[in-house]
Amino acid sequence: MKKERLEAFSDGLFSVVITIMVLELRVPVGHVTWTSLMGMLPLFLTYVLSFVYGAIFWINHHHLLAATLRVDSTILWGNLNFLFWLSLIPFFTAWVDENQAAPVPVAAYGALMLIVILSYRLLEYLIFRIHHGNALVVRTLRQGRREWASISLLGLAIALAFWYPYAAVAIYIGVAIMWVLPDRELEEALTD
Amino acid sequence: MKKERLEAFSDGLFSVVITIMVLELRVPVGHVTWTSLMGMLPLFLTYVLSFVYGAIFWINHHHLLAATLRVDSTILWGNLNFLFWLSLIPFFTAWVDENQAAPVPVAAYGALMLIVILSYRLLEYLIFRIHHGNALVVRTLRQGRREWASISLLGLAIALAFWYPYAAVAIYIGVAIMWVLPDRELEEALTD
Amino acid sequence: MKKERLEAFSDGLFSVVITIMVLELRVPVGHVTWTSLMGMLPLFLTYVLSFVYGAIFWINHHHLLAATLRVDSTILWGNLNFLFWLSLIPFFTAWVDENQAAPVPVAAYGALMLIVILSYRLLEYLIFRIHHGNALVVRTLRQGRREWASISLLGLAIALAFWYPYAAVAIYIGVAIMWVLPDRELEEALTD
Amino acid sequence: MKKERLEAFSDGLFSVVITIMVLELRVPVGHVTWTSLMGMLPLFLTYVLSFVYGAIFWINHHHLLAATLRVDSTILWGNLNFLFWLSLIPFFTAWVDENQAAPVPVAAYGALMLIVILSYRLLEYLIFRIHHGNALVVRTLRQGRREWASISLLGLAIALAFWYPYAAVAIYIGVAIMWVLPDRELEEALTD
Repeated sequence: MKKERLEAFSDGLFSVVITIMVLELRVPVGHVTWTSLMGMLPLFLTYVLSFVYGAIFWINHHHLLAATLRVDSTILWGNLNFLFWLSLIPFFTAWVDENQAAPVPVAAYGALMLIVILSYRLLEYLIFRIHHGNALVVRTLRQGRREWASISLLGLAIALAFWYPYAAVAIYIGVAIMWVLPDRELEEALTD
Repeated sequence: MKKERLEAFSDGLFSVVITIMVLELRVPVGHVTWTSLMGMLPLFLTYVLSFVYGAIFWINHHHLLAATLRVDSTILWGNLNFLFWLSLIPFFTAWVDENQAAPVPVAAYGALMLIVILSYRLLEYLIFRIHHGNALVVRTLRQGRREWASISLLGLAIALAFWYPYAAVAIYIGVAIMWVLPDRELEEALTD
Repeated sequence: MKKERLEAFSDGLFSVVITIMVLELRVPVGHVTWTSLMGMLPLFLTYVLSFVYGAIFWINHHHLLAATLRVDSTILWGNLNFLFWLSLIPFFTAWVDENQAAPVPVAAYGALMLIVILSYRLLEYLIFRIHHGNALVVRTLRQGRREWASISLLGLAIALAFWYPYAAVAIYIGVAIMWVLPDRELEEALTD
Repeated sequence: MKKERLEAFSDGLFSVVITIMVLELRVPVGHVTWTSLMGMLPLFLTYVLSFVYGAIFWINHHHLLAATLRVDSTILWGNLNFLFWLSLIPFFTAWVDENQAAPVPVAAYGALMLIVILSYRLLEYLIFRIHHGNALVVRTLRQGRREWASISLLGLAIALAFWYPYAAVAIYIGVAIMWVLPDRELEEALTD
């Protein structure tokens, strides 16, 4: 089985998920000053954060599938499971936004990101299982260290959200920054 | 005629159909407890069910077109007919959701799924007609047994919906599970 | 310049345009009988009509680009012009729907379809201009007869809409049926 | 690393961004005269302008990536940064629309376009950096002259918007026209 359609379908879903979030940014009718735009800053920042998370997942999905040689039905389902959780990002982003970062929505946002990462790890495992001899896949998976760090930090942030929701948000931002920084080792593996 | 653009267009439509359903999940403004999230559970479950049905149709469409060698105008129209019914899934999902699984919406949901399966069978037939000598297509079509089981079960569920809507929903879930389980025979045919 | 990205971008736009129309089909909350679903029939039929028009344009665009060997900047702009008018279909479909087929919206709907066909002819001309020696393109363009029939019929329907809007709608349906019927001559040209 | 998925993902995002703007065009319920359609003209014109800007960015992105031979992680992020700003176009288009071209929304619209162009230049620079010996990329980048003219004109328009918002809009239209006109030099470079 070829992987091209899996990539095409995933790309379609990624781009729709990322873009429909912008529909949640409601236009301030009758508010035509910079101040009214500034009042939307928290909303914009949540949008930026979710866009960056979407982008991180897309880039890693891109690397993972570039190293994949073939797919089976289990991988198709593993990918659909990952995309399902990803598709909930706009909903939980809107929940945080419309309730001014209340504890439970902030914790739920982190929990969703945790589930997305875990379902991504499951997809990695399913691909690894049928490519165990393949050097490139193994090296791509080396970035597992960053994944475990993210999982621990998100777990911490979810607990923290109930007392200090903004501290949790700060950790979410920190995790995102950690992933945006280039991984020199992976880069080298991929350019070989 | 090549099949690549048919696949690309179908993938685009599949991903939009699946993702716009998430727009129907309205954020509970001012409700910031886990209880309010739990109150959304029935909505989430309908979303999960429709996502899984969309995923099942995508996977089967993927297998079918992977085995297809060439397409003609009739197949293009058969595919568009299938995609038309598929595009109505968000509407009927929302109708079930916003009326707490009332009998008629639940029956209509099942009837739509029945029509989608029948239009998929028609597409299979149209592809089979111009590939009759091709072994892979024939073996892909062997999963017809599951299709007929689904058609019978959905017919039963639609009738049942008028008295026991939740029993109908249970059958819809059962049909979905039946398709998620791997088909070892098909898997072997495709990996040859 | 290669045509692959032009096809991919067009497919993306086609699938979004066709699918967002389903968002206009508002769920009848609190209405849970078949009668309430029947009350939506006119809406559904307009959706079907616009879906079929979208499908016709996609199939012809598919054939035209399959015969195209190379593209230049003028063709890119001709294609974007065609897609622009296509993107207005959801708006004019909704205008007809929400005003029970009032004369002006019905006439405007026909006028839009006329402009889409004319912009499609312009695209054909731009492609023809740089492929004048190519037999396949020439034969694909032979279906010009159907195009001119559509243009005349749509012109007639627009005028008629002011007195008999339903007669205009009947003509729109007739034009769509004319295109859905297979063109044996074109089919043969494409399978060579 | 191959560029195909970067193109596919970008095309998906471009087509969704361009098409969801049409969702902002609300249907005038109960208004069924040409006059009521004419009353929507300013809205339509803003939609046309944003569609044309989207189309210009797509065409240039298309040319740039056609000349690109390989991509690295930095380019993936540069592209995502460009797409992020692009995804905000529907929001700022709606802000201008719903406030009848008030000074601040008009200035913000121009500022967004300025940021999109600057992030596009950054992407060009990142691609140029790893292709410095490649003649086609260098020639594609020659259109930098038009970019600097746009940047200056948009800067001027943003300042002007506070006193004469319509003059600013006129400059936005002028910049768009400048880009729609073909660049003979680039055309020749690409057809070689």
